[in-house]
Amino acid sequence: MPTNPNDAVTKPRRGRRPGTSETRQAILTAAQARFAQDGYTAATIRKIAADANVDAALVMQFFGSKEELFATIMSISPAAMSRITVAFEGPEEGIGERLTRAYLELWEGPPAESDPLLGILRSAITNELAATQLREFILARLLEGIGDRLEADPQIALRAGLASTMLIGVIVGRRIIQVQLLVDEDRETIIHLVAPGIQRILAPDPATP
Amino acid sequence: MPTNPNDAVTKPRRGRRPGTSETRQAILTAAQARFAQDGYTAATIRKIAADANVDAALVMQFFGSKEELFATIMSISPAAMSRITVAFEGPEEGIGERLTRAYLELWEGPPAESDPLLGILRSAITNELAATQLREFILARLLEGIGDRLEADPQIALRAGLASTMLIGVIVGRRIIQVQLLVDEDRETIIHLVAPGIQRILAPDPATP
Repeated sequence: MPTNPNDAVTKPRRGRRPGTSETRQAILTAAQARFAQDGYTAATIRKIAADANVDAALVMQFFGSKEELFATIMSISPAAMSRITVAFEGPEEGIGERLTRAYLELWEGPPAESDPLLGILRSAITNELAATQLREFILARLLEGIGDRLEADPQIALRAGLASTMLIGVIVGRRIIQVQLLVDEDRETIIHLVAPGIQRILAPDPATP
Repeated sequence: MPTNPNDAVTKPRRGRRPGTSETRQAILTAAQARFAQDGYTAATIRKIAADANVDAALVMQFFGSKEELFATIMSISPAAMSRITVAFEGPEEGIGERLTRAYLELWEGPPAESDPLLGILRSAITNELAATQLREFILARLLEGIGDRLEADPQIALRAGLASTMLIGVIVGRRIIQVQLLVDEDRETIIHLVAPGIQRILAPDPATP
């Protein structure tokens, strides 16, 4: 039965009640982990509340809806954005390795850094906000780094988009579908094998057709 | 309120009632499209029934559960499997292009062929059956094609797994996250840009470090 969405959004009372900011943080931490593990559709306010050891009504009181809670935590940090941009900005030589390394280190880093990214990736399939964030990550910010190369190679944006989505494919294989062969391998071996392919896509050898 | 699952599974009556096989087929077609579009978690029996223009109870009567319905349609066809194997089996020269082309043609082919694959990909995040199918697709069957190369290059299985997951990344970018730049490009251009990178990963030039 549909209810008026405003009914559910009781604004939190003003004033410093003890424990409020800790509770809010506990909910955010639980939500981040839950969205990263289950994705947007399968994650529920009920599960997140249970993980944070609070009542589901309290989660609604703080955040209003699952969508708003998701929007609060599932943003790609400027630091993460800039690591990708920096990888693109350097010289053409080694760009494949720099970008491969930046992707793997970001998405496989400590949970505080990688959970929002994994949450976005898992959720992008069913949630438009997550899909938009991921599209932006792949494209808009990334293009900042290749600005100077656009004139020399009009296909560079397409090449960069392909390289990025292929590196996301590596993350999908290692962290989401978890193909054992890929999960078991150490990161340096993966970088060693993948980087030359990414290099070839971003900066093709002009001597070869 | 939980109900005894057996209550819902009323076996269809035997005998040739007119329209039974057409109804079953309509449900399968609707389910295939719905799983491909929404993934396992978000797709519901109710939506599938509505798409097929039948009552949800009838879907349960035919298939028993969402899981069973999913298992019925979400299998990768032997024909699809063998196209990937054949791409691997040929000579080393051109293997990057053959594999890239096989992946794109399969996952972007007519709905009857590509919907089960897209359904599995979208569902692999929340459904273990789909994840297992995708892992097998990436690994087990694929390894058939590289059997002869294993002795010459012990890393070939890892290389093949990486190439496959990177090509799935291209599909994710074009068909799931739908990065506009990648969606708009015609398939031959994508193959032209991606294939040399896949070639480099599968068959690195021995002259380069």
